[in-house]
Amino acid sequence: MMSKKRRLGRGVAMVGAGMSRFGIFPDRDTKDLFTEAFQSMLASVDKGADPADIDALYLGNFTNDFFAGQSHWGPILTDALGMIPKPATRTEGACASSAIAFREGVFAIASGFYDMVLVGGVEEMSKRSTADVAEGLALAAIPYERQSGFTFPGVFGAIATAYFDRYGADRRHLMDVTIKSHDNAPLNPRAQYRSSIRTIMESKAERARSKGEEVPEWEDEKEFLSDPRANPVVAWPMHLFDCCPISDGACCILLVGEELARQFTDAPLHVAGLGQASGRGLHAAETLTSFEATRHAAAEAYGMADMGPGDIQVAEVHDCFSVSEILHLEDLGFYEPGEGYKAVSDGATRLDGPKPVNTSGGLKCKGHPVGATGVAQLVELWEQLRHQAGDRQVPNADLRVGAAQNLGGTGGTCTVTILERR
Amino acid sequence: MMSKKRRLGRGVAMVGAGMSRFGIFPDRDTKDLFTEAFQSMLASVDKGADPADIDALYLGNFTNDFFAGQSHWGPILTDALGMIPKPATRTEGACASSAIAFREGVFAIASGFYDMVLVGGVEEMSKRSTADVAEGLALAAIPYERQSGFTFPGVFGAIATAYFDRYGADRRHLMDVTIKSHDNAPLNPRAQYRSSIRTIMESKAERARSKGEEVPEWEDEKEFLSDPRANPVVAWPMHLFDCCPISDGACCILLVGEELARQFTDAPLHVAGLGQASGRGLHAAETLTSFEATRHAAAEAYGMADMGPGDIQVAEVHDCFSVSEILHLEDLGFYEPGEGYKAVSDGATRLDGPKPVNTSGGLKCKGHPVGATGVAQLVELWEQLRHQAGDRQVPNADLRVGAAQNLGGTGGTCTVTILERR
Repeated sequence: MMSKKRRLGRGVAMVGAGMSRFGIFPDRDTKDLFTEAFQSMLASVDKGADPADIDALYLGNFTNDFFAGQSHWGPILTDALGMIPKPATRTEGACASSAIAFREGVFAIASGFYDMVLVGGVEEMSKRSTADVAEGLALAAIPYERQSGFTFPGVFGAIATAYFDRYGADRRHLMDVTIKSHDNAPLNPRAQYRSSIRTIMESKAERARSKGEEVPEWEDEKEFLSDPRANPVVAWPMHLFDCCPISDGACCILLVGEELARQFTDAPLHVAGLGQASGRGLHAAETLTSFEATRHAAAEAYGMADMGPGDIQVAEVHDCFSVSEILHLEDLGFYEPGEGYKAVSDGATRLDGPKPVNTSGGLKCKGHPVGATGVAQLVELWEQLRHQAGDRQVPNADLRVGAAQNLGGTGGTCTVTILERR
Repeated sequence: MMSKKRRLGRGVAMVGAGMSRFGIFPDRDTKDLFTEAFQSMLASVDKGADPADIDALYLGNFTNDFFAGQSHWGPILTDALGMIPKPATRTEGACASSAIAFREGVFAIASGFYDMVLVGGVEEMSKRSTADVAEGLALAAIPYERQSGFTFPGVFGAIATAYFDRYGADRRHLMDVTIKSHDNAPLNPRAQYRSSIRTIMESKAERARSKGEEVPEWEDEKEFLSDPRANPVVAWPMHLFDCCPISDGACCILLVGEELARQFTDAPLHVAGLGQASGRGLHAAETLTSFEATRHAAAEAYGMADMGPGDIQVAEVHDCFSVSEILHLEDLGFYEPGEGYKAVSDGATRLDGPKPVNTSGGLKCKGHPVGATGVAQLVELWEQLRHQAGDRQVPNADLRVGAAQNLGGTGGTCTVTILERR
């Protein structure tokens, strides 16, 4: 684990956060999505903010080079927002690209160089075919994995198999992650998929009935998810409903020096803990059932925040696949190794449980425009910690500390961010 | 121009700098090049540095996604250097990608979060065909330019035409940039092209003589460069010798908190000024003969350093094409608009002139592995300001302040960095 105690010389606060809808938007491009997120962010600043006061833009994007045939998005989006000549820096860390942008925005303010920074994330994935997207995403994997024929579902399928073998879990435990995400998503108006598994199940049965076809008799959600007609295998044991979708979307956050925060809102969020670490690919991992980068990043973030896993009241974690949510719960120290799946199946991570996780619907249902995801997680914490999450508000009047964990590639990059309302 | 005076809460110093050879290396990949640059950097630290003390890596890379079929290089290179689990952040700003990485490394230390940061840049371009590289580089242009059929040589050809028209310069003035770069490069052991124009001219004549062919009678370098057999047009008036090459290469710099610098060397370089700005593409530029991003970045850097153009004793500027070197000299304030070409033709920017520019040979001769270039410029300043530049050392015993200017795309991103030996 990291030995040094990290500190910032100047505190940094979040005073605004917003996002576009996530989904598949054939007629909207990166500029449209980012502008929507920017307007949503501006509207969230309680006392208002003047875009002319923004000193710089940090933009997370994985590979619009590949997905949209254009790189160098920093100045293009700066121009789209009317912010030329403000500087723009793109960061890339695969699916953790915008959590990294957030960190850089924090450092830029903490350094004293800037006072107000716009942090964003965007990805425009749906214009390419699914096969092309799979090829594009594979750019994020460690080379050995691709050369061994692993796709992302294949990697996480292998991880799930190892977890099952080691701890005695099975597919039905993974289903509890999926069912929970799908239960939260209908409460999130910007989520890509907003139906519970029960609703999907009942509408499939209803459709069969209306067509005069044989009506499947699924007793409950797990029986539905066990039916290969409803939930086909992608890379065993990862089935369709274990996998997050292809998405378009963008997010924005406004950061300021902490001493300035009350000019913008009476309820800023303090950047309490930051952690980032790198990990080896599967070829060199000590274990398949834990991500070393997550463990190191968590230790660093807890150290800076002077907090431990027990202090985190709500969390967004990187559920690119159902099994990864369980691993992250353990790597964040919420549960001992091999205990995460039991907690999930006991309902501990549900909206009304003791440790609500992925209240947004997670990557699985909210969507996963990869370069936007890290900031999207922080947007969810913004709403939860400020008690503005509407129907999906965690029912805890004392809610004030949340964490987000964002994973890039097959564990190559991980960030952990702890936000606190003081 | 920027109105705020930028300051860092904690000073940052460069205590090591190194680079790989630049060139075309069919049998060496990104890991090989970066490892060479890292070893070169470590060897440059006067009192030695322990890699285990490095807190984080910042890596500039434009689009190895495209050039090398792999993204997410941060953790891959961290692993290659044996530095897992240290965090790694990739930055991208087209050809300014690694100058941006340098800035982020400075901010990370100035913020107090880290004490020692490795900054690097790398690009591996030569494995793709020239046509593919042109397509890859076009990802950095503003979309309107590509949609109008502009290539990079086309954009800079249009800029040169506008400059000629406005100020009365002609191709023979551009040749003075090329001749100077080729005169400096033989003195740089890591440059890609290490022959003066005179040497190239004489060897071409000698080759014709030895083959019994008609021997061309070029009176001097400018006659040689005017001969389309020797210097064919690429995009008028940009000819072959106006254009930088396709290159592979990597660079590394070691940064520490200023109060720690003397542990590593008695001659650290202080990060005196930082500037970065964004510009519109040609479609919206107010003028074709000046880059707004460079002007804004320069003003910011001079403001932070409490310096002006007259304080800069040596400079590396972004000569992706001969004409851009002249524009940058004017945008940096070294010369008035329309005066830069006269100064160059008067020899002012030669190694022994009053304002030596691109002593490294510049992008033209040192090479331009795009993601490595920003850091490569700072490596040159490291050697010049510490009087370690060997045969190409600027003959000025009082040399202590240098600037580097790095341009991304067609002016979308510009950085200006001022380094000072105190």
